[in-house]
Amino acid sequence: MKDRFLRALKKQPVDKTPIWLMRQAGRYLPEYRATREKAGNFLALCKTPELACEVTLQPLRRYDLDAAIIFSDILTIPDAMGLELSLVENVGPVFNNPIKNTHQIKQLDIVDPSDDLGYVAKAIKLVKKELNDTPLIGFAGSPWTLAAYMVEGGSSRDFAKVKKLSYNDPDSMHLLLQKLTVAVTSYLKMQIQAGADAVMLFDTWGGLLSQSDYVSLSLNYMEKILLSLEPLGIPTIVFTKGGGMWLEKISRIGSTGIGLDWMTDIKVAKQIIGHKVALQGNLDPTIMLTTKAIIEKEAKNILDSYGIGNGHIFNLGHGITPDVPPENVKYLVDFVHSYSQQLHAQSSI
Amino acid sequence: MKDRFLRALKKQPVDKTPIWLMRQAGRYLPEYRATREKAGNFLALCKTPELACEVTLQPLRRYDLDAAIIFSDILTIPDAMGLELSLVENVGPVFNNPIKNTHQIKQLDIVDPSDDLGYVAKAIKLVKKELNDTPLIGFAGSPWTLAAYMVEGGSSRDFAKVKKLSYNDPDSMHLLLQKLTVAVTSYLKMQIQAGADAVMLFDTWGGLLSQSDYVSLSLNYMEKILLSLEPLGIPTIVFTKGGGMWLEKISRIGSTGIGLDWMTDIKVAKQIIGHKVALQGNLDPTIMLTTKAIIEKEAKNILDSYGIGNGHIFNLGHGITPDVPPENVKYLVDFVHSYSQQLHAQSSI
Repeated sequence: MKDRFLRALKKQPVDKTPIWLMRQAGRYLPEYRATREKAGNFLALCKTPELACEVTLQPLRRYDLDAAIIFSDILTIPDAMGLELSLVENVGPVFNNPIKNTHQIKQLDIVDPSDDLGYVAKAIKLVKKELNDTPLIGFAGSPWTLAAYMVEGGSSRDFAKVKKLSYNDPDSMHLLLQKLTVAVTSYLKMQIQAGADAVMLFDTWGGLLSQSDYVSLSLNYMEKILLSLEPLGIPTIVFTKGGGMWLEKISRIGSTGIGLDWMTDIKVAKQIIGHKVALQGNLDPTIMLTTKAIIEKEAKNILDSYGIGNGHIFNLGHGITPDVPPENVKYLVDFVHSYSQQLHAQSSI
Repeated sequence: MKDRFLRALKKQPVDKTPIWLMRQAGRYLPEYRATREKAGNFLALCKTPELACEVTLQPLRRYDLDAAIIFSDILTIPDAMGLELSLVENVGPVFNNPIKNTHQIKQLDIVDPSDDLGYVAKAIKLVKKELNDTPLIGFAGSPWTLAAYMVEGGSSRDFAKVKKLSYNDPDSMHLLLQKLTVAVTSYLKMQIQAGADAVMLFDTWGGLLSQSDYVSLSLNYMEKILLSLEPLGIPTIVFTKGGGMWLEKISRIGSTGIGLDWMTDIKVAKQIIGHKVALQGNLDPTIMLTTKAIIEKEAKNILDSYGIGNGHIFNLGHGITPDVPPENVKYLVDFVHSYSQQLHAQSSI
């Protein structure tokens, strides 16, 4: 069943619960590390369509995954806007030209994805040719999350700089978010036109905001993006890490599915919003570092917590980490498929 | 009104909303930095009762705060257990002897606070002599938070080591948590006997757990501590950072008050649990870096969100940061007192 992922996302009946993993094309795979070495560095890997295609496909050769996700990074947009991304070992993403003043925000050119990010469209087209009907997910960072990285100049403990900007100069902050909203929207449209079957918004830092700031700085802009994408008829997933308290609000912005972090109880989430949207998640990624017996127990627990009914896509509650043994991923994927078969058989009785 | 803090904690009527700030005796104060320099380092400052007393009192000389909190650190317990704490600039807390295997957990001596942590009791007694009836808060880390630091060897991005231990070897993990529960309980009892008028449990890392792990690894042990303290009749506050989804559960473990992080909407929290417990919080600490006008607007918003009624203690949603201008703290404290007076006048009509 090749359309399991898309069917579950639309809350249609499936034979087994579909599964894919955030960052499934990643450093835990030796073949990924080899290709990355060939590319020279992470960003070169993103920008070389043939190699990005290759690493996108690698996990699907090993595992019976129900979706591919295009290999890229949420920070390609600010990179294309001239901030110059580099990934520093043990530090994370760093911008050589972070946003330091409001003048820069005014000057910031909204990127034209077909021009500056055409390598992503090319990679998507290459992947689609190889995929044999397995759906491909496109993605982008939320405007807030991109803005947070752009103003901090990289990752941060408390994101004090960007929060200060949003309090001290809300007009500039909203101008930045509007520009990013336009850029993300056209970037996702380009991915859809290139062949992406679904798109996902990663709001990695929305959970660091107060509820009212979350709504005004993050959620509202994601809603605008979803509204612009609606005519294209492609299913969408929104994922705010740390957004478990705001699920009801998130469920009202028009996405087809919602990603859950591992702190959120999927049973509670289903009770609150499961009648409206599909739910994706949410195994604690740390569990992938343990044993097969523990992985089975915890995956079973999530499947049982979601219970009988359509609309569940299995995933981790955050990206898979580089130290996960690849055989644990195989075990998880196969277990989710085999165990969930019973649940779906019951639901169709 | 010297007992404003204790009255609000017990949900009794007050003239003004009481206010104190987490980490109010801290690096944002030049006199704190001077005393710390005199002590040599952070840990020496904790361990020298006269200097710990001095820095505890410093913010109360500047501001009309409704409570003092004894200057110390949650990691004094693992330090006393032999893990040897040091605080490394730009890194944070580091243990020279972290827990690396289960044998160490079995060998770990439960610290006798009156012996190894007597310096905290001495500092409390010194502070109490100076305080003139202003209440003094004692505190400790939650067993889970202490265990997380002890196994990781310091702070961490994902606390993978301690989570792996709790999945792979739950017996050892629970043995560690039990030992810490005994230590924290006797530590807080010692603080109460020395004169602390209320005690607070800081569960800094509980919010990184899945809901079921949070209950079994953190909440249950905090409940045990509260149960043991109950006969002493001293009010208690529990604070789980990132615990906003679990407020209803947290409100059932027997604390007098609950601390809220800045992500939680205090209005929602009051609706869910405000009839049971007092609420403490919850201004985003980043706001203290902005202007007086913004501080006033955001503080007013929190006071209005709590609204009319007893049981609110104003605080930040996390500790005050070193770069806050001291005059902003004065502005906040005075504004909270003056503005809240109207709210309390209305509530007694």
